[in-house]
Amino acid sequence: MVLISLLTDFGLADTYVAQVKGAILAIAPSATIVDLSHAIPPQDIAAGAFALWSAVDAFPHGSIHFAVVDPGVGSRRRGVALRTARGDIFVGPDNGLLLPAAKRLGGVEQAIELKQPVYWRPNPSSSFHGRDLFGPVAAHLSLGVPLEALGPSVADLVQFGLAEPIGNVGEIIHVDTYGNLVTNFPGASLPERFHVGIAGRLVAYAEYYAAVEPGALLALVGSAGLLEISARDTSAAEILNASRGTKVTLEPT
Amino acid sequence: MVLISLLTDFGLADTYVAQVKGAILAIAPSATIVDLSHAIPPQDIAAGAFALWSAVDAFPHGSIHFAVVDPGVGSRRRGVALRTARGDIFVGPDNGLLLPAAKRLGGVEQAIELKQPVYWRPNPSSSFHGRDLFGPVAAHLSLGVPLEALGPSVADLVQFGLAEPIGNVGEIIHVDTYGNLVTNFPGASLPERFHVGIAGRLVAYAEYYAAVEPGALLALVGSAGLLEISARDTSAAEILNASRGTKVTLEPT
Amino acid sequence: MVLISLLTDFGLADTYVAQVKGAILAIAPSATIVDLSHAIPPQDIAAGAFALWSAVDAFPHGSIHFAVVDPGVGSRRRGVALRTARGDIFVGPDNGLLLPAAKRLGGVEQAIELKQPVYWRPNPSSSFHGRDLFGPVAAHLSLGVPLEALGPSVADLVQFGLAEPIGNVGEIIHVDTYGNLVTNFPGASLPERFHVGIAGRLVAYAEYYAAVEPGALLALVGSAGLLEISARDTSAAEILNASRGTKVTLEPT
Repeated sequence: MVLISLLTDFGLADTYVAQVKGAILAIAPSATIVDLSHAIPPQDIAAGAFALWSAVDAFPHGSIHFAVVDPGVGSRRRGVALRTARGDIFVGPDNGLLLPAAKRLGGVEQAIELKQPVYWRPNPSSSFHGRDLFGPVAAHLSLGVPLEALGPSVADLVQFGLAEPIGNVGEIIHVDTYGNLVTNFPGASLPERFHVGIAGRLVAYAEYYAAVEPGALLALVGSAGLLEISARDTSAAEILNASRGTKVTLEPT
Repeated sequence: MVLISLLTDFGLADTYVAQVKGAILAIAPSATIVDLSHAIPPQDIAAGAFALWSAVDAFPHGSIHFAVVDPGVGSRRRGVALRTARGDIFVGPDNGLLLPAAKRLGGVEQAIELKQPVYWRPNPSSSFHGRDLFGPVAAHLSLGVPLEALGPSVADLVQFGLAEPIGNVGEIIHVDTYGNLVTNFPGASLPERFHVGIAGRLVAYAEYYAAVEPGALLALVGSAGLLEISARDTSAAEILNASRGTKVTLEPT
Repeated sequence: MVLISLLTDFGLADTYVAQVKGAILAIAPSATIVDLSHAIPPQDIAAGAFALWSAVDAFPHGSIHFAVVDPGVGSRRRGVALRTARGDIFVGPDNGLLLPAAKRLGGVEQAIELKQPVYWRPNPSSSFHGRDLFGPVAAHLSLGVPLEALGPSVADLVQFGLAEPIGNVGEIIHVDTYGNLVTNFPGASLPERFHVGIAGRLVAYAEYYAAVEPGALLALVGSAGLLEISARDTSAAEILNASRGTKVTLEPT
C-alpha cells in the first residue's frame, strides 16, 4: 500500500488536481492519494518548497511525493525523480522545489531525468505535465517500477535551499493561515535564554499559547521544529505587520 | 475497513491537515480518511461543534471522528476519546467540541483521558496535538486498540450544548455557504401551521426552493432536520442581514 | 475497485460534501472517492457542465461520476443515471449538467430515471438529494447494481451543450484559477497560421509559456485540448478584462 502525496499551485476551483488523480488511479487503482496543499501561490517555488519541507517528515517512509510548481512547464526544464536516503521518492520539475524536503529526509541518493514516454500519458500536453508526466510516473513508481527505468541519471540538479540564519539574524520563511510567523531558527539550537527581536519589538518565549494573555505575542518552537512568533487567539502577522522575508533576531535577555 | 473523519480549523492552505493524515497513515496504512471540514473559523468551538453535529449522522456506525478546534492546546486542558451508544468514537480536546455530535449518536457511554504516550507520536510538540496525539490515537483505535488502553476514565467532561429554543423563541445556529439560515427548531416538533418571524419579517413555509419565486424567502426543514430560512437562488443571510445568534420566532398563522 | 468522482456547488466550508461521502461509504465502504471540484458557482449549471467535461477524460474507463448543481432540487425535475458508450456512468439531476461530459465519453447509451427508493437513504430530505439519493445510488452502482434496476428508461433528457464556435467566431467558456482564458476552439481544427482576436487585441500563438516574455500574452492549445489565451506568470483575464462569454476570433496572419 504505497502512499502518493500531491502538492501543487493548481488551486481547488478547477479540476486540474482531480485530473492528476484520475491519471494516477487509471494506472494504479489502489494507490492511496493524500493532498499536501494545492494553495501554493501561483509559480512561487520557494513557498512550495517550504510547504513540501514542512509536511514530509510526518509521512510513512517510502512515500512518493508528487510536487508541481512549475513556471517553466513546456520549456527545456527537466522533469526529475529523486530517491532520498530514507527511501522516499520525489517527482516533479527540476527547479529546486523538491530539494529542501529531500534534504530533510536524508538527502538525494539518486536522481534521474524523466525521459521514457512509455511511463507517461499518451500524447502529453505541453502545459500540464502534472497530469501527463509526473502523475503517471508517480503511479508507475507506486507499482514498483524502478527509478532507473524512467531515464538517465542527473548529476547537476538545479539547486535551491531554504534561507538559513546568519549568526543571530534570521528571517520569516512562512506565514501560516493563523498568522503565525515561522522563522528559520531551528528550535534545537536556540540559546537557553533569549528574546526575539522583530519589527522593533522584543517578544518573550513561552511554552504554549494559553501561557500568555489573549492577544499577547509569544515565541515558541512550533510544530515544524522551528522558532515561531505567534499571538494568542489572533494573528501575529497582523499585529507586527510582518511577512515572508521580515528580519528576526535572537537577543540576549 | 474503519473510517476516520477529520474536522479542524486548520484551513487547507498549510500542510497541517496533510501532516495529520501522514501521521495516521504511518500507523494505519489502510485507513479510509474523510474530511468533514477544515474551514471552521479559528478557535470557534461552537461552530466546530455544530459542523461535527451536522455531519456524523450520515456516517457508518462505528466510524472514528477526529475533531480539533483547540485554543487550549499545550495547556492543562485534557485530550479525550469518547465512545457513543451507537458505537462511534470521538477523539479530540476536552472543551465541549465533541459533545453535541456524541449526543446525536446516542450519548457518551465511555470517556477516557489520553494519557498513554505509547500511542502518540514520539516527542510530541506542544502546539500540534492533532498530528502528535489525536491522529495517532485515532489510527490505533482504527486498528482495534481498546479505548481503555488509552488512559483513565473521565467523569467530568467539559460540558457544551447547542443552543436550544425556549418556547417559540429560537435562534440562528449556523449560516451555510449559500446563505441559508439554520435555526435550532427541530423539524419534527413544528406546529402544523406557522410563520417564521425573523428580523421584523414573517416568512412562510414551503416544501422546496422551486416552490417560490426566484429571490423570495421561504422556511423549510433542511437536510439537518432543522427549520431553515432560505431564499431561492440567493442568500437569505444577505436579504435579512442575519447571522449566528439572530433571534427567530414561530408565529401562529 | 470502482472510482466515484464528486462534483458539486456545495463548497468545502460546510459538511455537505462530507455527508455525501459518509452516505456513500456507509453502503460501499471500499469505494475510492475523488473530488472533481466543489467550487462551482452556486446553481451555475453551465460552469458545472464545463468542469465535469474538463475532467472526465483523465479518469479510468468505467468510473462513476456524481455531479450535483441542482437549483430544482425538491421540485419535479428528475434524477437520472446515464451510461456512456465508454462504459462510464453519470448520476445527477436531469438539467443538462451531465451531457457535455457524457458526450465527450462517446455519448449517452442508456438513461434511466431514479425511481426505486430501495436504493436511496431512508426518509430522503427534499433539499439534499446529493446525500439522500444520488450518493447512495452511485454507491449501489459501484457494487454492481445494474442501471436498469434503478428506474425506468428516459428518452427525453433535458438538453444542454457547451457553446460552439460559428465559423471563425468563438467565445471564452471558462476562466481558470490562473486567469487563463479557455476558448471553445478545438486545438485539433485550428488553421496552420493565425492570430487570436480578443478585446481589440491580436494575440500570437506560442508553443509554451516560457516562449514569451514575462507578462506577455500568448495563445496555445491548453490541457483540455482547446485554444487558450494566457499570459506568462500573470492573468490574461485581468490584462484583457475578459470573462466567460467574451468573443474571440481567429484572424488570418
